[in-house]
Amino acid sequence: MLHFDIEHTDPTGARAGRITVRGRAFDTPAFLAVATQASVKALTQQELADLGTQVVLANAYHLYLRPGVELIRRAGGIGPFMQWPRATLTDSGGYQIFSLAPLIEITEEGVCFRSHIDGSEHLLTPESAIEIQHALGADIIMAFDQPVGHPSQREQTAEATARSDRWAVRCLEAHQGAASKQALFGIVQGGFDRELRTESAGRITELSFDGYAVGGLSVGEPKELTFELLAHTAPLLPAQRPRYLMGVGKPSDIVRAVLSGVDMFDCVLPTRLGRNGTAYTKAGKINLKNARYQDDLGPLDPDCDCQVCATHSRAYLRHLYKSGEILAARSLSYHNVHLYLRLMEHIREAIRADRYRGFATAWLERTNGNS
Amino acid sequence: MLHFDIEHTDPTGARAGRITVRGRAFDTPAFLAVATQASVKALTQQELADLGTQVVLANAYHLYLRPGVELIRRAGGIGPFMQWPRATLTDSGGYQIFSLAPLIEITEEGVCFRSHIDGSEHLLTPESAIEIQHALGADIIMAFDQPVGHPSQREQTAEATARSDRWAVRCLEAHQGAASKQALFGIVQGGFDRELRTESAGRITELSFDGYAVGGLSVGEPKELTFELLAHTAPLLPAQRPRYLMGVGKPSDIVRAVLSGVDMFDCVLPTRLGRNGTAYTKAGKINLKNARYQDDLGPLDPDCDCQVCATHSRAYLRHLYKSGEILAARSLSYHNVHLYLRLMEHIREAIRADRYRGFATAWLERTNGNS
Repeated sequence: MLHFDIEHTDPTGARAGRITVRGRAFDTPAFLAVATQASVKALTQQELADLGTQVVLANAYHLYLRPGVELIRRAGGIGPFMQWPRATLTDSGGYQIFSLAPLIEITEEGVCFRSHIDGSEHLLTPESAIEIQHALGADIIMAFDQPVGHPSQREQTAEATARSDRWAVRCLEAHQGAASKQALFGIVQGGFDRELRTESAGRITELSFDGYAVGGLSVGEPKELTFELLAHTAPLLPAQRPRYLMGVGKPSDIVRAVLSGVDMFDCVLPTRLGRNGTAYTKAGKINLKNARYQDDLGPLDPDCDCQVCATHSRAYLRHLYKSGEILAARSLSYHNVHLYLRLMEHIREAIRADRYRGFATAWLERTNGNS
Repeated sequence: MLHFDIEHTDPTGARAGRITVRGRAFDTPAFLAVATQASVKALTQQELADLGTQVVLANAYHLYLRPGVELIRRAGGIGPFMQWPRATLTDSGGYQIFSLAPLIEITEEGVCFRSHIDGSEHLLTPESAIEIQHALGADIIMAFDQPVGHPSQREQTAEATARSDRWAVRCLEAHQGAASKQALFGIVQGGFDRELRTESAGRITELSFDGYAVGGLSVGEPKELTFELLAHTAPLLPAQRPRYLMGVGKPSDIVRAVLSGVDMFDCVLPTRLGRNGTAYTKAGKINLKNARYQDDLGPLDPDCDCQVCATHSRAYLRHLYKSGEILAARSLSYHNVHLYLRLMEHIREAIRADRYRGFATAWLERTNGNS
């Protein structure tokens, strides 16, 4: 279903390669642009393609509730529906149910919840989550799980993780025999407990998923704990399969996680911070809300070759932001996605040149973790 | 300052030509894209240029309050500030003060008002309105006037109109000798009274403005009254100078007004309705809020060759609108501005071919005034 060609492994363990599913390919380490509701916020699909985006992530929970899976199935799947010809991935919606939807009941069968849009009642099971993702038709789909937040009690974490791992078996069974050739990834949970992470990784990697995700990190815990658990968990995953760190993160988080051999990332930050008036740069963040940019006619990021930085001044962009103009969100989102995609290119180049340690150290020192 | 080449006049009196100011030219009848705060809402300047926009309108009232004229002067004027290399026009802000700002006092000297942004107190006079527009540096600037709303008392209308006409003299005096070579347009007021319109037109056209605007129409009065007053006023303006009908209108309004020999239009509708989920077409409006488009996988407007209609379905665009995605506002604004600009091209072609009567009749019948 999925072909993962690891073309080079750097002395740090960082790997550069290429994933191919159903004829669509993307280079790793990869950043997945987040199109929760079938649109990467503020950008067009053409802009994403021009920026070099190779794969986008949509969310089964959101699309199931609105516009509904039947419409997207009729359109030919999420790619044709949003007119995105490159690779696609859908998250199963487990995380979104627990973060957005008023919960009614969790049983062994599945999760009963209320829609955050209209309050209607729904039951999602591992089987229906896979069925929904079959209809949405993304190239890669995700197992349905129950993440735990931070902080969490060990007993509850153990219970949720064990249930998620049992659901993973049912997801795989529901997917086996599907004609779609979609790839299915399992998700390791285990909260903030190394032992539970080890147990979950053991159970999930016993199952023949096409790739393995680390879930339930970067949900509010201290940053050092995130990376400690990642460093603990990543080596437990099979080296020859893609490793996906879900929902991470800032550029510096991605730079660090690649050191643990992670191949895929997704994060809302480049577009969310863009809408919020903030630009990432190689030297840290620029917050245009800061009055110091009021009269600054210099480019947004002098070190950037994107269309926005070639065109507009900080003062103009700040004015647009302060005035509530959509062009502010567009411009900053565009710049930020450009920065993320260039970062991934530079990460891949550094890995291939066996100089990833130096690249990562320089990035983390220069940005001081601020970007 | 301004060269107006009327290249052809159709039997209806509709004229096609070209206005050149400071080396920047635009074809007439022209639609000015509205960039109130130095951005045409939801669109980039590159998109506007690609769509064929030749001239944009910004607002002195808004830009004076935010970001302030000094910044824009330092940037080289409104064109360089927003990186728009083609023609520009600023409205003086008279209309905006009276529609947006809490009023403190109107005297012969000028208007004292509070900022709608922060409540700060400001005095604008004909002289300062011209000085602000000199700093903003648009190719065409507008006299500072006091419009009247609908309905209005004859006595108040007479008073406001006479004062506006006296202010017009002071605007012209403040502009004479300016080194900028900006063109200055006078504005005929007179409310909804033919006699007052005649008086105002007489006084304004005695002054040597570069062009003449009809102000104070399309502010809530019945549509037939708008066109009756326009048909009354337009012939009172000098035939060899541009005629500008401010703030008008729907496509069908523009089609009708061209019959009165109007050369310039501006309107927020294409972008405002775009943000509000509505697309103009040659056959009327499409309101994507309507549930009938829920499952409609056909193009937004099958009769349109814009990028949006070539790419996205009604169902997808409706989904984006319902989901609050910025891409909905972007897509519909883009399509609507495209429609307006193609309409203006077709208007100019029809005039040059002496078939404007037929063109206008067909448009008005087909759209039933709905677009």
